[in-house]
Amino acid sequence: MERKAIHDQIGQVRLHGPGPSDVPDSVLEALSSKTIGHLDPDFLRVMDQTQEMLREVLRTKNRMTIPISGTGSSGMETLVANLVEPGDRVAVVRNGVFGGRIADEVSRFGGQVVAINVEWGRTVEPEQVKEALSSGDCRALFLVHAETSTGALQPQMKEIGQLAHEHDALFLVDAVTSLGGTEVKVDEWGIDAAYSGTQKCLSVPPGLSPITLNERAMDKLRNRRTPVQSWYFDLTMIEEYWNEGGARKYHHTAPVNMIFALHEGLRLILEEGLDAVFERHRKNAAALQAGLESLGFTYIVEKAEERLPMLHAVFLPEGADEGKLRKQLRAECSLEIGGGLGDFAGKAWRIGLMGHSCREEKVEALLRDIRSVIVQEHGGPSA
Amino acid sequence: MERKAIHDQIGQVRLHGPGPSDVPDSVLEALSSKTIGHLDPDFLRVMDQTQEMLREVLRTKNRMTIPISGTGSSGMETLVANLVEPGDRVAVVRNGVFGGRIADEVSRFGGQVVAINVEWGRTVEPEQVKEALSSGDCRALFLVHAETSTGALQPQMKEIGQLAHEHDALFLVDAVTSLGGTEVKVDEWGIDAAYSGTQKCLSVPPGLSPITLNERAMDKLRNRRTPVQSWYFDLTMIEEYWNEGGARKYHHTAPVNMIFALHEGLRLILEEGLDAVFERHRKNAAALQAGLESLGFTYIVEKAEERLPMLHAVFLPEGADEGKLRKQLRAECSLEIGGGLGDFAGKAWRIGLMGHSCREEKVEALLRDIRSVIVQEHGGPSA
Repeated sequence: MERKAIHDQIGQVRLHGPGPSDVPDSVLEALSSKTIGHLDPDFLRVMDQTQEMLREVLRTKNRMTIPISGTGSSGMETLVANLVEPGDRVAVVRNGVFGGRIADEVSRFGGQVVAINVEWGRTVEPEQVKEALSSGDCRALFLVHAETSTGALQPQMKEIGQLAHEHDALFLVDAVTSLGGTEVKVDEWGIDAAYSGTQKCLSVPPGLSPITLNERAMDKLRNRRTPVQSWYFDLTMIEEYWNEGGARKYHHTAPVNMIFALHEGLRLILEEGLDAVFERHRKNAAALQAGLESLGFTYIVEKAEERLPMLHAVFLPEGADEGKLRKQLRAECSLEIGGGLGDFAGKAWRIGLMGHSCREEKVEALLRDIRSVIVQEHGGPSA
Repeated sequence: MERKAIHDQIGQVRLHGPGPSDVPDSVLEALSSKTIGHLDPDFLRVMDQTQEMLREVLRTKNRMTIPISGTGSSGMETLVANLVEPGDRVAVVRNGVFGGRIADEVSRFGGQVVAINVEWGRTVEPEQVKEALSSGDCRALFLVHAETSTGALQPQMKEIGQLAHEHDALFLVDAVTSLGGTEVKVDEWGIDAAYSGTQKCLSVPPGLSPITLNERAMDKLRNRRTPVQSWYFDLTMIEEYWNEGGARKYHHTAPVNMIFALHEGLRLILEEGLDAVFERHRKNAAALQAGLESLGFTYIVEKAEERLPMLHAVFLPEGADEGKLRKQLRAECSLEIGGGLGDFAGKAWRIGLMGHSCREEKVEALLRDIRSVIVQEHGGPSA
């Protein structure tokens, strides 16, 4: 087996799939800074700054706002492991792959899933949430804000949060794909806990999962009847390491360099300004949508206002072979886009405009490449 | 709050604590390679090569040899979550912090701990293991090969592995600190499953946990009566993503850049040659030991042959203030060493010579710095 160094064997692929997204040079530079100790005074300061910036991006004042030492799904597991106890009834909106994954997690940790099933590509109506919660005694309501498998953005978040609280349930949110690309207003929407990933709109390599929990969620954790079923994700211990000015008690060795990268990714977003970042996503999404529709693509999500700006889940033009064309784009254009997931495998593409991948010139190049393979294949819709 | 870039706010600290260790430039370079997709053909090839090199370093042919997407402790949780079922009796050798952590993990996942308690600083005798296993029906025996809290290296690994198998128990090993610094012969010692970390002798930043499971362990997993209690660490699903030539089914987004770094770390070790690497650790350990003893330090581990070459856990000379001197070394010499853990907090130092931190010139500089602060404080033992 050949043992070439990494830089001799990987290419300059442009990332327009469902994540990871392109990573800015300064983030890669931060990532490759000299490794220092996880209890080093310089590192503790970087931790504090990272938490502070995470709070800004999440629009929250929650003290417990930290990156979990694993990829996005580890944040999901952290919330379930800490906030769901065996026997707890938990309402879970299932309108795509990730709602299904949450239900699986809840079951594994002994919770009873009260499924709120919604057709894939649609979002949940507050009325459906109310009905499920009225059926009684749910300790939590779990919802995916931006469902990456269908491209749907959940509206009415504040209203749904209020419903959860009226029924004495925690409002728990998956913000993996939305954070850093569209508004995620944790405090204003009444979100009790949320998690995200670094490799989507934060434009940091995969490997960390930012989470936030408010005091209501922390109270649920502190008053558990049973120990947290995970040691690695036990927030009662992780808290003692992360809390600013606290004991800084060693739990596990923090992924130092990944936290450096997250620090820089957040710094860039706040330097540009959240509103400007969201406007950039909206504008480029509109351009991509116009281009795709002119080529004969149609959106899985029917309501235009419920489509994600950062992830375009689309059916291909009639007769196009998605697998073949996708391979061709990767091989001939060094362009990565994503295939369909779950129900849409083999039928759809998922085209990402996330974070640093969401730039006007990148959208133009992306559309040019997609047009070229579609036209080669079919002569194009208008040919 | 100041928002300086990382390179403007962290120093060039020399790492001689219990990990992370110094990271070679080429590993940092690999870490900062262009991020590519977790299903990209170039990345799949890097995954295959990484597995192949991990097998060499672990001296195993186990197909299931992969890095888990979390720090070292996530490997511990992975083994427990997959191989311990509720009600299983599991013998755990407790001779330091990490044996205690394993017992905690086993309990959280519903196992019954059969504790084999050994004085801290000592290792377990095969006779004690036999006695515990004879008490009946243990499904597994868990052991820390290199206990980082005391500096003890467990001998007689092969004999202990045989005892486990005679009693129909899986032999499960923590090789976090030993791997890449001293022999870890997975197949020859009859280890059924083991885990390690990247930030010790592999000289890669913290963030991944290499694990290996043989067919006996995989059979136990496949024949579970209950689902794995973790989704994130469920090896039945992770296997479908990692298996060479397999379905490459998406589970979670792999930490792409960290795997690049691990690839380079392993490549460097195999280029130098495992035997040469171990000899370097032995030689530098002897030099450090001679230097420390001449300054009045004494080892926690009494038997010289059971001391770790890569981590020297030592009591300070009479009257020395460990916290004060350690802070001084960090502030004045940009040198990190570790404090005592658990029973030895405030009483001992843990000085690491791990991987890239284990170089003749680094040992000389380290001893020079330690000598200078000790002599400042006390006039030194021979002054």
